[in-house]
Amino acid sequence: MALIVQKYGGTSVGSVERIQSVSERIISTQQQGHDVVVAVSAMAGETNRLMNLANQMSEVPEPRELDMLLSAGEQVSIALLALSLNQKGIKAISLTADQAGIYTNNRFNDATIEHIETDLITQWVDKGYIVIVAGFQGRDKNGNITTLGRGGSDTTAVALAAALNADECQIFTDVDGVYSSDPRFVPNTRRLKEISFSDMHLLAKSGAKVLQEHSVAHAWNSSVTLRVLSSFDDGEGTLICEQPVEGKGVIGLALKQDLLLIECNGFLEEELTELRKQYRVLIERCDCFQIVVPKAAFLQLKLAFSTKIRNISSLSILTLVGDKVEGMADSACNQLMANCVDIYQHSIEPKSLSVIVNQADLERAADILHKTFVITEQSQDNNLMIAVS
Amino acid sequence: MALIVQKYGGTSVGSVERIQSVSERIISTQQQGHDVVVAVSAMAGETNRLMNLANQMSEVPEPRELDMLLSAGEQVSIALLALSLNQKGIKAISLTADQAGIYTNNRFNDATIEHIETDLITQWVDKGYIVIVAGFQGRDKNGNITTLGRGGSDTTAVALAAALNADECQIFTDVDGVYSSDPRFVPNTRRLKEISFSDMHLLAKSGAKVLQEHSVAHAWNSSVTLRVLSSFDDGEGTLICEQPVEGKGVIGLALKQDLLLIECNGFLEEELTELRKQYRVLIERCDCFQIVVPKAAFLQLKLAFSTKIRNISSLSILTLVGDKVEGMADSACNQLMANCVDIYQHSIEPKSLSVIVNQADLERAADILHKTFVITEQSQDNNLMIAVS
Repeated sequence: MALIVQKYGGTSVGSVERIQSVSERIISTQQQGHDVVVAVSAMAGETNRLMNLANQMSEVPEPRELDMLLSAGEQVSIALLALSLNQKGIKAISLTADQAGIYTNNRFNDATIEHIETDLITQWVDKGYIVIVAGFQGRDKNGNITTLGRGGSDTTAVALAAALNADECQIFTDVDGVYSSDPRFVPNTRRLKEISFSDMHLLAKSGAKVLQEHSVAHAWNSSVTLRVLSSFDDGEGTLICEQPVEGKGVIGLALKQDLLLIECNGFLEEELTELRKQYRVLIERCDCFQIVVPKAAFLQLKLAFSTKIRNISSLSILTLVGDKVEGMADSACNQLMANCVDIYQHSIEPKSLSVIVNQADLERAADILHKTFVITEQSQDNNLMIAVS
Repeated sequence: MALIVQKYGGTSVGSVERIQSVSERIISTQQQGHDVVVAVSAMAGETNRLMNLANQMSEVPEPRELDMLLSAGEQVSIALLALSLNQKGIKAISLTADQAGIYTNNRFNDATIEHIETDLITQWVDKGYIVIVAGFQGRDKNGNITTLGRGGSDTTAVALAAALNADECQIFTDVDGVYSSDPRFVPNTRRLKEISFSDMHLLAKSGAKVLQEHSVAHAWNSSVTLRVLSSFDDGEGTLICEQPVEGKGVIGLALKQDLLLIECNGFLEEELTELRKQYRVLIERCDCFQIVVPKAAFLQLKLAFSTKIRNISSLSILTLVGDKVEGMADSACNQLMANCVDIYQHSIEPKSLSVIVNQADLERAADILHKTFVITEQSQDNNLMIAVS
């Protein structure tokens, strides 16, 4: 008998029918003899609906009140999931993050979990209940509701697993595991059976959306075994752990889109220092200062600096992650250039190699890098054939 | 400088525009030099939407989880109202009932407020904030979220006014005061400028929907001066107080609809005893036991007793409220019968006279009773003319 923490994202609980199906999955886990604690996101679309209401009130909503608003989304989904389980004769109780004792700092809209007082959760688990906790949210020490920022339900699940000393933290989502790249843009990607915390962290940091960066870091620090699974299919998913058996070589290609190349003119030195801290600088000459910023941040910069900034083009960053990828920079850049992909910049960090290209070249560049450098089933088969021959 | 508690119902906060307009009304109260604490319902339609989701999970949703679900509705409206006020440069903070210290018993779906720990509200008021509290909800001593039942936001407002020792509790709704009868069904009704707690309580208990019965009782017990006002128009509304200056004679006619006349056959004696306790008995003979039940209760009875109960007809109850109305029973019944309205039963209590008629006769009966017995502006003018002549 193990204690399993499961997390279900917004798509997984996006309708009454899907919530019913999630409850079947939970019951099946319980029937295998496990205790189950569940972290749940708001129903798909709900956070956006609430955000839209907030924006009708204010372009930049007051952070505390925005968290009060958004946290209502998970309150709905946890209650519905508990009702569904109750209806099937299963003992289940829903808890807001406040009730569940999830304490955060008071950085509204982007709070960090500081500790979890697990007494109440443990009491209900000991009574044989499925405990359903609102993801994405917490409370500060003054009792204000906070949220962890988008994707924060992953972090809730990992923090619960760590605090409860759970045997596994299962992240149920709309894909059946972590892939070698984003299948929506890159052909012939493969599901990874296992991946190390460090590689997963690099992928998430570089744009892979399957797991939130902070949640991977938290799991890594707390040695919480993570598994990414599909809530729509059965399957073993992807195990994220300290020492995976497989996972040598270049294991993945992460894509980061919706970036803009911005030229700054007439800035004060202290303003430039601030920009350097926050954003990647591409060109820095006395007559030209160019940085790469997310589209979302551009609007705020535009409000602050008006005509002093200018949008030049849309960019994407592609990041190869894995062993010895640092030595592949020349080869990667040559391959891209040979295929007429302009490279704005490349950069190397331990186990990662990034290139910045035009957004328009994203799919072509991704295809080239993935098929050339990332271990696919194809290349594994090839290796096998070579080994055999 | 006074402390005013205001309550805004679901229609008053039913859209972004209406919330904006409510915030203007609050600001105007503050600008008159008052401190303002506000209790808010869920946006119109939201509680029904959530209830509908719950019913898709379960025909009889588990009460604790239903309260977890429904209470999300007010959390949205309080946050949006706070955002609207913040955007207009006004200091405002929203509090869930839990945060506001509203303690109830643990009768989920129909909880009673036991006490309010007002420290946090008072702290924010003292700092010059508009404090916006979620209506309709509370917390039990174990930290579970409870709800007060439909219309409970009125009760929240009254309880807050009592606990904070407020100077006035203003109930903003979609009509501009308490009327002598329901203007949707009865011609020539008039708005009452004042009404006593006891008369208002009788009207609410007898079906007048403008104020919830419990909230009137609570205000009466706590001597909280109530005022019913329109959130759409300006006007002085109706003052509900201990000793109104006007309000002698028959002041109103309350209507209670959606009742069914049910015949019960083959019931056990203890079952009949139970029915007698809960419902009004019309006929009780060895061969015939007829009771009056609300439509909503009929479904449950049908589930429990199946073919042992039978729906005979749809009924309404009309109740005249006011001084010396007890002596008008004969006259009222004669008037109705002279106009071909069948009377199933009439009953007299201190300051109230009720008649049960067919639902189909409701409007005709109401018109007759209202114009004959209730003081209208017409009859006031007549009295005046008589006095003058």
